[in-house]
Amino acid sequence: MQGAVLYGPGDVRFEDRDEPRIQAPTDAIIRIAATCVCGSDLWPFRGLDAYAQPTPMGHEYCGVVEEVGKNVQSVRPGQFVIGSFFASDNTCPHCRAGYQTSCRQREFVGGAQAPLLRVPLADGTLVPTPEIPSDDLIPSILALSDVMGTGWFAAEAANVQPGGVAVVVGDGAVGLLGVLSARLKGAERIIAMSRHETRQKLAREFGATDIIAERGEEGIARIKDLTDGIGADSVLECVGTEEAMMQAIRSIRPGGSVGYVGVPHGVELKGKELFFAHVHLYGGPAPVRRYLPELIRQVWDRKIEPGKVFDVTLPLNRVAEAYRAMSERRSIKTLLTP
Amino acid sequence: MQGAVLYGPGDVRFEDRDEPRIQAPTDAIIRIAATCVCGSDLWPFRGLDAYAQPTPMGHEYCGVVEEVGKNVQSVRPGQFVIGSFFASDNTCPHCRAGYQTSCRQREFVGGAQAPLLRVPLADGTLVPTPEIPSDDLIPSILALSDVMGTGWFAAEAANVQPGGVAVVVGDGAVGLLGVLSARLKGAERIIAMSRHETRQKLAREFGATDIIAERGEEGIARIKDLTDGIGADSVLECVGTEEAMMQAIRSIRPGGSVGYVGVPHGVELKGKELFFAHVHLYGGPAPVRRYLPELIRQVWDRKIEPGKVFDVTLPLNRVAEAYRAMSERRSIKTLLTP
Repeated sequence: MQGAVLYGPGDVRFEDRDEPRIQAPTDAIIRIAATCVCGSDLWPFRGLDAYAQPTPMGHEYCGVVEEVGKNVQSVRPGQFVIGSFFASDNTCPHCRAGYQTSCRQREFVGGAQAPLLRVPLADGTLVPTPEIPSDDLIPSILALSDVMGTGWFAAEAANVQPGGVAVVVGDGAVGLLGVLSARLKGAERIIAMSRHETRQKLAREFGATDIIAERGEEGIARIKDLTDGIGADSVLECVGTEEAMMQAIRSIRPGGSVGYVGVPHGVELKGKELFFAHVHLYGGPAPVRRYLPELIRQVWDRKIEPGKVFDVTLPLNRVAEAYRAMSERRSIKTLLTP
Repeated sequence: MQGAVLYGPGDVRFEDRDEPRIQAPTDAIIRIAATCVCGSDLWPFRGLDAYAQPTPMGHEYCGVVEEVGKNVQSVRPGQFVIGSFFASDNTCPHCRAGYQTSCRQREFVGGAQAPLLRVPLADGTLVPTPEIPSDDLIPSILALSDVMGTGWFAAEAANVQPGGVAVVVGDGAVGLLGVLSARLKGAERIIAMSRHETRQKLAREFGATDIIAERGEEGIARIKDLTDGIGADSVLECVGTEEAMMQAIRSIRPGGSVGYVGVPHGVELKGKELFFAHVHLYGGPAPVRRYLPELIRQVWDRKIEPGKVFDVTLPLNRVAEAYRAMSERRSIKTLLTP
């Protein structure tokens, strides 16, 4: 088969790879229905993450189970399934507490930008849909594999409450789905920080009540203006840079909550500033697995359409163009079909 | 009158100071019944905080109202009152949300190690006791002015739950009262980190179920041992050094909460470590004012005795010895009587 492999900054190739096969009796092989490029794939693509190269890429996936290891009990060939970017056993104390991305057996699921994917710990990781979904549902189901669950976790980590004021820093797919999540959680005012027209439009569609194009001190001043000088109750930090994190921390009211889900890159926080900001700070790799049953239900019932973040669809063999389009911000998120 | 003035590292003098007087119509003057030295007073005493010198010291107080400004309505001369180390109006949006230490009119109350003290924003700041307390209640009432409220806030910030596992880092008065607070909140297991026998004893008296004398990696390993390798649900960080903060962060389970109340000194936190620890991090200057009515009630009804942290009592004119005794850890906390 052929799949995406990262060779170095800016260098993603679509090339021959060995077909994955069952390695452990708890594995499953799935045939990918759709996959995509993640904002976090752009860190190594831009040379900002050190990666062992060449590296098979992709960690967002949904598709039909092709084969399972002999110990797998909860999914079977022919079922349509979704999983998170971290495989988890869903039985260890951390999983049972709802932190599947801190599972004791946690294993990163890589190489999904290909027709076939091996998923470890299949029983704990994969969740089947009620039936084989119709084609128009696929983008929204794929979005649950990472970005929707991550946006949802950001809203939860930022303690978004009915009637509250939520700010979303970052207008990538996760930020936009953070807007949607804040709306689902009943925030009264949702302020999206964005200076890109197409993203602003989608933010409004997902429920943003205000858009702020300014950044840094100016952006913070605008948030204070909009909140009678008080600051936001909740800020969803969906980028991962120090600039975004400080923007988040400085935008909240004392006692407010910052939920951060962008993988921090070079972020250093001064204890004294956090202390006097009275900020609740909480984040991490979203425990997407925890939310899958509920979010699948919402998509299945057509109550939410997170798949709207996919504004470009390409065949998998044009994966390199997908990386470029997202890196150059020509695409919010690009869906790839094998 | 004579009061404590800090001239420089190790140099606290008891010397003539002007008697405080009403400066704003919202001020009150109180006659101090008892005051004390705070762990945070030791930062500048040890030369670890830059202070404008000479500085009148002390921010923990209780006593009888001597005089009030013409706008003061809720307290009157003759009443016995307690307040927090930050004066607050108790009416601004931050106060109403329970963050009185982030009050828009916040003002630090300094110079309490003296017979008389000016308290700004008296209506918002001071809370009267039901009657003039008997002498034996004074230490516990004084403890409410900072350390008990701060320990309580640490337990709340660390989300201590009935049946949970709480760790307390720091065996000063705040840490010890953090132990008491964790017990009041129903923690099943309370692990106090301490290597001082008298402090260990008081920790046990306040409700600690386990004592760990080890620090750093060894201390963390002991906590993991005691929790089946899972980590603590809650850690109360009551020191303020980077070492203590990292000990706290590395001792929790994924999704656990660190409540930090030691004023951070040189603490720098790496975003990526916080992210992958899945840690809830929350702290700040304890909004003691929020807790005063309830904690006064508990002391008044003799349900709690936070005054046990005072193991040495000295006359106010020996204030320099009080600083030395605490700095050399010969005293947990020293009470001073004018």
